[in-house]
Amino acid sequence: MANSSSFLHSPTKPFKAEPNLKADEILKQMEQISFQGRNLAKAYRIWKRMLTDDVLIFFGIAGALSAGGLRLLIAQIIANRWIDCVVSTGANLYHDLHETRGRYHYIGDASVDDSLLQKARIDRVYDTYASEDEFIDNDNWIADYATNLEARPYTSREFLFKLGKHLWDETGTDGILTSAYRANVPIFCPAIADSSIGMGLSQGRHLKSGVGYIDVIGDVIESTNFVIRRRRTASIVLGGGTPKNFINQASVQAEFYCPEIKGHQYALQIITDVPHYGGASGSSLNEAQSWGKLSADADRVTVQADATLVLPLLVSGLISTDSQRQPRTVPRFDLSNPVISVEGVPFPNGRYEEYP
Amino acid sequence: MANSSSFLHSPTKPFKAEPNLKADEILKQMEQISFQGRNLAKAYRIWKRMLTDDVLIFFGIAGALSAGGLRLLIAQIIANRWIDCVVSTGANLYHDLHETRGRYHYIGDASVDDSLLQKARIDRVYDTYASEDEFIDNDNWIADYATNLEARPYTSREFLFKLGKHLWDETGTDGILTSAYRANVPIFCPAIADSSIGMGLSQGRHLKSGVGYIDVIGDVIESTNFVIRRRRTASIVLGGGTPKNFINQASVQAEFYCPEIKGHQYALQIITDVPHYGGASGSSLNEAQSWGKLSADADRVTVQADATLVLPLLVSGLISTDSQRQPRTVPRFDLSNPVISVEGVPFPNGRYEEYP
Amino acid sequence: MANSSSFLHSPTKPFKAEPNLKADEILKQMEQISFQGRNLAKAYRIWKRMLTDDVLIFFGIAGALSAGGLRLLIAQIIANRWIDCVVSTGANLYHDLHETRGRYHYIGDASVDDSLLQKARIDRVYDTYASEDEFIDNDNWIADYATNLEARPYTSREFLFKLGKHLWDETGTDGILTSAYRANVPIFCPAIADSSIGMGLSQGRHLKSGVGYIDVIGDVIESTNFVIRRRRTASIVLGGGTPKNFINQASVQAEFYCPEIKGHQYALQIITDVPHYGGASGSSLNEAQSWGKLSADADRVTVQADATLVLPLLVSGLISTDSQRQPRTVPRFDLSNPVISVEGVPFPNGRYEEYP
Amino acid sequence: MANSSSFLHSPTKPFKAEPNLKADEILKQMEQISFQGRNLAKAYRIWKRMLTDDVLIFFGIAGALSAGGLRLLIAQIIANRWIDCVVSTGANLYHDLHETRGRYHYIGDASVDDSLLQKARIDRVYDTYASEDEFIDNDNWIADYATNLEARPYTSREFLFKLGKHLWDETGTDGILTSAYRANVPIFCPAIADSSIGMGLSQGRHLKSGVGYIDVIGDVIESTNFVIRRRRTASIVLGGGTPKNFINQASVQAEFYCPEIKGHQYALQIITDVPHYGGASGSSLNEAQSWGKLSADADRVTVQADATLVLPLLVSGLISTDSQRQPRTVPRFDLSNPVISVEGVPFPNGRYEEYP
Repeated sequence: MANSSSFLHSPTKPFKAEPNLKADEILKQMEQISFQGRNLAKAYRIWKRMLTDDVLIFFGIAGALSAGGLRLLIAQIIANRWIDCVVSTGANLYHDLHETRGRYHYIGDASVDDSLLQKARIDRVYDTYASEDEFIDNDNWIADYATNLEARPYTSREFLFKLGKHLWDETGTDGILTSAYRANVPIFCPAIADSSIGMGLSQGRHLKSGVGYIDVIGDVIESTNFVIRRRRTASIVLGGGTPKNFINQASVQAEFYCPEIKGHQYALQIITDVPHYGGASGSSLNEAQSWGKLSADADRVTVQADATLVLPLLVSGLISTDSQRQPRTVPRFDLSNPVISVEGVPFPNGRYEEYP
Repeated sequence: MANSSSFLHSPTKPFKAEPNLKADEILKQMEQISFQGRNLAKAYRIWKRMLTDDVLIFFGIAGALSAGGLRLLIAQIIANRWIDCVVSTGANLYHDLHETRGRYHYIGDASVDDSLLQKARIDRVYDTYASEDEFIDNDNWIADYATNLEARPYTSREFLFKLGKHLWDETGTDGILTSAYRANVPIFCPAIADSSIGMGLSQGRHLKSGVGYIDVIGDVIESTNFVIRRRRTASIVLGGGTPKNFINQASVQAEFYCPEIKGHQYALQIITDVPHYGGASGSSLNEAQSWGKLSADADRVTVQADATLVLPLLVSGLISTDSQRQPRTVPRFDLSNPVISVEGVPFPNGRYEEYP
Repeated sequence: MANSSSFLHSPTKPFKAEPNLKADEILKQMEQISFQGRNLAKAYRIWKRMLTDDVLIFFGIAGALSAGGLRLLIAQIIANRWIDCVVSTGANLYHDLHETRGRYHYIGDASVDDSLLQKARIDRVYDTYASEDEFIDNDNWIADYATNLEARPYTSREFLFKLGKHLWDETGTDGILTSAYRANVPIFCPAIADSSIGMGLSQGRHLKSGVGYIDVIGDVIESTNFVIRRRRTASIVLGGGTPKNFINQASVQAEFYCPEIKGHQYALQIITDVPHYGGASGSSLNEAQSWGKLSADADRVTVQADATLVLPLLVSGLISTDSQRQPRTVPRFDLSNPVISVEGVPFPNGRYEEYP
Repeated sequence: MANSSSFLHSPTKPFKAEPNLKADEILKQMEQISFQGRNLAKAYRIWKRMLTDDVLIFFGIAGALSAGGLRLLIAQIIANRWIDCVVSTGANLYHDLHETRGRYHYIGDASVDDSLLQKARIDRVYDTYASEDEFIDNDNWIADYATNLEARPYTSREFLFKLGKHLWDETGTDGILTSAYRANVPIFCPAIADSSIGMGLSQGRHLKSGVGYIDVIGDVIESTNFVIRRRRTASIVLGGGTPKNFINQASVQAEFYCPEIKGHQYALQIITDVPHYGGASGSSLNEAQSWGKLSADADRVTVQADATLVLPLLVSGLISTDSQRQPRTVPRFDLSNPVISVEGVPFPNGRYEEYP
C-alpha cells in the first residue's frame, strides 16, 4: 500500500528575512518555499546549471520587456553570454532601438483618458508612455537605413546584425541590438512584419523598389541548423509569443533531419499566460515534451509571473555568482554574412545541415 | 454636486431561463446582466452593427482555435462574409489544413504522462491530441506544393490564396483556407515562419533552391492599403497575438500616409490575456485608442474569455439573425495576382496607395 | 511500445452553427470541441447525470453573481431542485435581498472616475452600480429584523431560512433567499460576518444587546451531518471562495466520523482562479481528491470561466431538457427549527450524526 | 490643445544589475521600470510611508501563505509591528499552528497522481504536501483546547489570542499565532468556520455541549471600533478573500457611525485575481474608493503577483531599512479580555464606539 514516507521526505522551510540579504541569498532561500516563489528559485538554479553545461542556449523575449525597463538586463544577459541566440518580437527590438537612440519611455498611469493621450500624440503601453512623433522618427530612421542596404533578401538575423552594427556605430550605446552585435549573438525575429520595424521596412520599400525583403523562411533553416550542429540545446523564454514556439520548432525541425535529436535539454519559461485555453504562449513544458520540443529528462520549470517582477532579482543573482562559475566555452559565431559561420565553419546555404 | 441619478438610469435585469431559448434570445437577454456576460452580448450587438455599416472588417485569429474545434465556425464567418480580411497565426491555418486533408484532432486528456505521448508519437494541445506522423505528412505536402510554385517572392496573402485553391482542388472540403479561397477573402499570416507552414516551406527550399520566399513586408503594405482605400474599418480579434497587432498597425501605418484616417470604427476582441503585464495580446481597447489604432468614438468591447466557450453561441446567434439583416455591400477582391485588386482596381505594386 | 491508436480513438468534431440552435443543442455539440468549450459541455452532462442519481447536491456560490445578474438563474436552480443545499457568500445573499426588496443594480462603466461615484454615493462592482443609500436602508432593514428575533444563537442556516420567510412575506418576490425558503432548501453562509448582512446584524446588536449571535460552528456540524446521513453527495461550485472549501470540508469532516465516506461522487466547478498560486479558490479537482474531498472515481470537471458568461447557456440547457428527465427523489427538509429534520428525522442537536 | 510634455515628464530608467545588490537596492531601482515591477517597488515605498505616519495598519492574509512558506515572514511583520491588526483566513492560521507544533509541509510535485496521495494519506496544496494524520492530530488538539475553555461565546479575535498564548506556552516557537500573542496584535478570522480550526471547534462541541461558540458578529463591531477610535487607517492585503473585504467593510461601517471617516489613507494589495469578473478578491482599489473603503487621496497600489514571489524581497527590503526609520508610535492593545482595550481604554461592550 502507498506509504506517506515515500512522498514526505523534504520539508519546506519558511523564508526568514534578515537585514542586507543579497539577491542570490534571497533566491537560495526561496528554493525551499512553495508555488511560484520556489519556481523562481528553481529557474535560477537551472539557468546556472545551463551555464556549466555545453548547451547552446536560446533566449526568447516577448511582451513589452524593453518598454517595461528590462532592456539593460537583457543586454547584460547577452553581453555576459548567459545565452547564445536571441529570438525576439519586433516590438522589443524597436523599443530597445528607441532608447538606444537616446529617447525615453515615460512613467505613466494605466487609468488615464486615452483620448487625451491620442490628442497629445502619446502612445501608451499599460502604465508607460512614449512620444508618437519620436516613434515616427524611428520608423523613418529604419526606412532610411533599409534603403541604403543592397537590395536583396536578408534573413531577419542578418538584417538585425547589420542594424545593430549601424546603431552601435551611430550611438555607441548599450542596448539589446548593440550588445548582440558586439557579442556576435544572433537575433531572430520571425514576426518582424508585425512590428514597427516591419513598418519602417515597408516605408523603405515605398521609397525605393526592392527594399525590405526579409527572408523569414531562411530564419527557420538557420535556427534549426544551430540545433543540428550543436545537438545539446536549452530554452529560456520570457513571455511566450512567437519566440517561444520558434525556439521549440527549431528543435522539432532538427529532429526531422537528425532523428538523434530529442529536444532541448533544459527549459525555463517565465510567462503570464496559462495552459487551459490551449494557446502556445501558456502551454506547459510537459505538453512541449509530447511534441519532442523537450528532452524526456529535461530540467524544466515554469514561473508564472510578470518578467518585470522577477528578472531584476534573477539577473542580480546571476551576476553576483558569475565569478564563482567556471567560464563556459561559448560557441563563436560570425554573423556578418548571409550565412552564419560557427567556429569558422559556415552553415549550408539555404539548406539544412547534413546529418553526419 | 454629483448626483446619483446621473449614473443610475439603466437597471440591470437578471437573466431568466426558459425552455427552448435560442442562441440569439440568450445573447439578447445577456445584454442586461454584468461583467463578461454583458460584454459577450455587447460583442454580438457590435458585430451585427458592423454588418449593416460600410466598414471593411478585419478578423484576427490566434490561439489554438482550429485544433480547438472552431475551424468550421471560422469558415462559416468567412463564407457568410461577416468579415472581409483574415489575419491568422500559422498554426490555425496549419491545423485547418490538417483537418481539411481528412485528418483529425482527437479528444484527449490534459493530465497525461507526456513521455508516453512522446513515445506514441502524439502531439498534445492541452486536452487535444494529434498524430505526429500525420503532421509530418502535412509538412511534406506543403514542401511539395511549394517546390512546384514559380520561384519568386510571394506575400503570405498571395501564397495562402494559392494554397487554399490547391487544397480546395484536391479535397473539395470546407475549412478556413478553402472557404477564404472560394469567397475571395484575403488571409495574411505575418508570422508564417513561426509555424509548421513555415517549416514545410523551409523543407521545400531544402529540396529546391529559391523556394519559400515569403514577402511579409509586402503583407504590411497590402494590409495597410486596405485601410487607405476603404477608410472605414473594423477589427474583430480572437485571442491576441500577432494578428491583433498586425490589424492595428495597418491602421496606424495608414494614418502615416493618409492623416484623415483615425483608427478602426469598431473593435471587438475576445481574449484571455490581461492588460496589467503590458503585453499586446492583453492590451485594452482604450490603450489602443492612445495609439490611434482605434477611432475616438469607436464602438468597442473586450470579452475576457476562451473563444471555445463563446464562439459557438455567438456565431449561432449571428446565423440565426442573418436573414433579418439587409445584405451588406461587401468589397470584392481579386486575389489571384501578386497585387490585389479591389472592385477591379489594383493596389499599387510595392507601394502605399496614394492619398487622394 | 506505446501505440498512438491507444490514445487517438475519439476525434473532435468542429462546431457547426445552424440557424435557431437551442441551448441544449449548442451544449451537446460543444461536447466534441476542445478546451473550456468542451469542459462546459461536460459540466452540462455531469449536472444532468447528478439529477438522475440519488446524490445530495451542494451548490456553492461566490463572486458577485447576484449583482452580476445571475440571481434569477440561481433562484430557478433552487426552485427546480437541481440542487439540495446552498452555500453562499454573504454578498450574494445581500445583493439578492436588495433586488427582492425592489431595488436595482444598474448598468455602469468599469472605466469611470470613482471619486465622482463616491461623491454621488454610488457603489461600483466592476461595471455595475448601486445606490449606497439603498444599501444603507437594507442594512437597517436587516438590523430591524434581527432585533425582533428571539435573542439566542442561530446557525446561519436557521437565520437565513427565517430571513427568507420574512422577505417572502414582505415582498412575495422570487429571488435566492425567497426561493430557498419556499423550496425548503438550506442556505449556509459560513463567512456571514464578512458581508453587509453581517454589518446589518452588528447594527442590530448595537441597538439591542444579545442580538446577532450567529453560530457558524453549528453550521459546520449541520453541513457535515448532511453528508453522514446521505453518504452520496455532489458538489457544484461557482467561483470558489468560502463556499467551495466549506462544501469540501463537510466531506472531509464526515469521513472523520464515518470512515466509509470517501468524498463527493460528482464535482463541477466554474471558476476564474487558477491552481498555480496555491489558493483554494483555484485549486484543481484532482488536488481535492488527495484530501478525500472527492471520491477517487468521481465524475468531475473544471470550467475556467466567468459564470456570467456560461450560466445563462447552462441553465437554459437544463431547463429545456428538464421534462425529459425522470423526476428525482429529492430529500425533504424541515428548516424551521434550530435543528434540521430530513424526511421527518431530526439531526442530532449540536453533535455529529452517529455512525451506524 | 493637449500637449505631450504635460504627460512625458518622468522617464523610466532600465534596471541595471550589479553584483551583490541588496533587497532594498533592488526595490529602489525597480521604482523606475514598468508594470508589476514598478508596482512592487511602489508597494515597498507606500508601506515604508505608512510606518512613518500615525495610521493603524490592517493586514489581511488569504491564500495558502503559511503552507507556502511565508509563515515566518508574516511573523516577522507582526513582531516588528509593521502592522497593527491581522485579518486572516482560517487556513493560514491552521497551517501556521501545524508548523509551530513542530510538523512540516513538504516539497512536492503539482503533477502527481492524486489517487496515490489519497491512499498514502497525503493532502496536497498545489506543489506542497502534508500528512493527513498530522492534520487530524491538529484538529483533535484544537478540539481539546476548546473543551477546556469556559463555555461562552468568544469573538474570533479573543479566541485566537488565547489559542496563540496556549500555543506559545506549549511550544515556545515563533509563528503567526504566537508572534501575534506576544506582540499583542489582534487577529480576526471572520470565516473561521470555513477552516480546519472551525472543524476542530466543531469536534470540541461534539465532545462537550456549549463549546465552540465564535461570535463573528462581535468581530465586526470590534474591527470597526478600531477605525472609529483611530480614524486614520491603512490596509495591506495579501491575496484577497474574506480578509480583504472585512478590512474594507470596517471602514465603511465606521463611516456609518462617524461620517467624518472617509476610508483608509493607504491601501496596498498583492493579489492574483483580476477585476473583470466582478469578484471582491480581484477588485481594484479605484473601485474600493467608490464605496468609501478608501480615502479619495489614498496612496494606493495593486501588485498582481503571487505573494511567494514577492514577499521575500519586500520584507527583506523592509528589514534592511528598519533601523533608518524613526520608530513609530504603535497603538498598544490589551487583548486578554472579551473586550479590547487600546492604551488602557476599553472599547464599548457589544456596541459601536460613540461618535465624539
